[in-house]
Amino acid sequence: MSKNFSYSTLHSFAKNIFLKIGCNKKDATIAANSLLIADLRGVDSHGVARLSGYVRLWEAKRINATPHIKIIHETPSTGVVDGDAGLGLVVAPFAMQVAIDKAKKVGTGWVSVQNSNHFGIAGSHAMMALQHDMIGIAMTNASALVAPTFSMERLLGTNPIAVAIPSGNKQPFVADFATTTAANGKLEMLQRENKKAPNGWVQTKTGEPSTDANELKKGGALLPLGGDKEHGSHKGYALGSIVDIFSAVLSGANYGPWVPPFPAYVPMPQNMPGKGIGHFFGAMCIDAFRPKEEFKLNMDHWIKTFSFSKTIAGKNKVIIPGEPEREFETERMKNGILLLESVVEDLKNVGKKFGVGL
Amino acid sequence: MSKNFSYSTLHSFAKNIFLKIGCNKKDATIAANSLLIADLRGVDSHGVARLSGYVRLWEAKRINATPHIKIIHETPSTGVVDGDAGLGLVVAPFAMQVAIDKAKKVGTGWVSVQNSNHFGIAGSHAMMALQHDMIGIAMTNASALVAPTFSMERLLGTNPIAVAIPSGNKQPFVADFATTTAANGKLEMLQRENKKAPNGWVQTKTGEPSTDANELKKGGALLPLGGDKEHGSHKGYALGSIVDIFSAVLSGANYGPWVPPFPAYVPMPQNMPGKGIGHFFGAMCIDAFRPKEEFKLNMDHWIKTFSFSKTIAGKNKVIIPGEPEREFETERMKNGILLLESVVEDLKNVGKKFGVGL
Repeated sequence: MSKNFSYSTLHSFAKNIFLKIGCNKKDATIAANSLLIADLRGVDSHGVARLSGYVRLWEAKRINATPHIKIIHETPSTGVVDGDAGLGLVVAPFAMQVAIDKAKKVGTGWVSVQNSNHFGIAGSHAMMALQHDMIGIAMTNASALVAPTFSMERLLGTNPIAVAIPSGNKQPFVADFATTTAANGKLEMLQRENKKAPNGWVQTKTGEPSTDANELKKGGALLPLGGDKEHGSHKGYALGSIVDIFSAVLSGANYGPWVPPFPAYVPMPQNMPGKGIGHFFGAMCIDAFRPKEEFKLNMDHWIKTFSFSKTIAGKNKVIIPGEPEREFETERMKNGILLLESVVEDLKNVGKKFGVGL
Repeated sequence: MSKNFSYSTLHSFAKNIFLKIGCNKKDATIAANSLLIADLRGVDSHGVARLSGYVRLWEAKRINATPHIKIIHETPSTGVVDGDAGLGLVVAPFAMQVAIDKAKKVGTGWVSVQNSNHFGIAGSHAMMALQHDMIGIAMTNASALVAPTFSMERLLGTNPIAVAIPSGNKQPFVADFATTTAANGKLEMLQRENKKAPNGWVQTKTGEPSTDANELKKGGALLPLGGDKEHGSHKGYALGSIVDIFSAVLSGANYGPWVPPFPAYVPMPQNMPGKGIGHFFGAMCIDAFRPKEEFKLNMDHWIKTFSFSKTIAGKNKVIIPGEPEREFETERMKNGILLLESVVEDLKNVGKKFGVGL
């Protein structure tokens, strides 16, 4: 069972909820933008389905609806932003804009963020760079669900990396992926369907390989991209670690097992070494390297070469990163966004609390 | 059968060969440094075993021993370097130094390189940043051996990424990995031992899964990190693509299937869109984000947390990226570098050609 809503209906609903928790108009709009772009792009796990979770974090006083977000240190090409415990959905676009402004002046800008919260999908922030003919980079750490290679313990989040690269006539290249074999959302889908997980996605509490999609609830862990050592999991572990260090050790946020959890009912970790969740953003002006027209010609050529390469039997085409999400965006902007009945119920309950109808 | 040589014996042998092909003293020393650090760190496939390959590229006039390496475009935080077809072993340290010098002035430096050749191991260039209390990043594209997810064609190289991060009392974090499930060197080891490759390393000429370690010789391809779609190969493919674009589309080097091959007997690709091989380097000054003393305290804490986490049965410890290579370095600097008899023969033949004894 699922129900269809237009982009604008869901956007104004989310915006109204953010206003009700005390966000100013500008922030409520930005937060709704950040959230809705996930639904539009088909990343259902990171869209309005999470709205009630943000509200619960605000109720638990873990999210500050009226933050004073500020740059606490900077050089011509770098900055550190203190998110003042604000919504990551608002802190992230602020920090990405700082990176873009610096890139306009000195070619590139790099911003590490402390004291933030869950920022939605990484790709939406990285894509802010595209309209400026810049490459955009966004990453974030997240609460620990992933065991490094050989470890029994959950020490890393799914720590995604997004890279958005401008093109000419072709659609831009937008990669946005968790540094694990599979994101948690995919595991949850298998749970709903009562299916087994493929090898290399999860391990048990004691570190044994497992195909039980419910393993995380039993104290198990997600596995880094690669799955096991023989298939390169030490590389996925290194990638997740780099995201953690750039986002949190460089900014003074919490890292490793100390990253605050998204569910408000989960207690905060003890002895936290930093402030909030950490993010990292980068913007690189194409013209700071070579004339953007030349770059775009080559980029279109690159995209065509990969798109039109010979596929293996049964596959239509080689997918350029960002292509499936863009197809979702076009389709859902036109035909609406399908939400699961359980998500609709959840939104209605949040709405009732604040007198906002859906 | 293998034979043991001291670091200094192999270093002066390599330096003398580079002098004989026409490098000046400074370049010959730098090239020997870049090459030998691979042998020291246990990456045997990228050390002196490749010396004869570089010589053959010089004989084929694909490597210029007396290049005029120069910055052809720059902004305060960026630069593009033209390697003038020089040894990548020399071009890369030049470009990394440009990145470091820019980071000293404006916080970070980012350099894309065109018209270069094979640069040895990525990690050695990234590590140049460490002595300046900077994070170092190095990547390069390489000739196409890897099929993107769903493709039959080889369109990407093993395109490695290295990230070196300073620490305090602990040894630094140095990740250096190919964006494939396994590097080609590991496949060659299996060939010598007549063993099968694990699932997810290679595919056949028509894109079928294979465990034949000789698949590349039959027109097959290496697979991106993840192996297949179900295990996240689209992420490894995205990573390899990002390396290709940052290294080559941003600089004007060759990308995708047009990257020049390392073996001099392999014909150059037709209709090449750029110049030589491309690299990409970055340097980020820690102090441009937060006081380096604070960063190093947190970094040591991060390393201890991961090192001392509970391991799964049968595993001694969780490995911090760079740890095995550093152990090799200590051991081999003390006890010498063991070379396979075939590599020794190859070096002796190169030596004979130029009247240089080993």
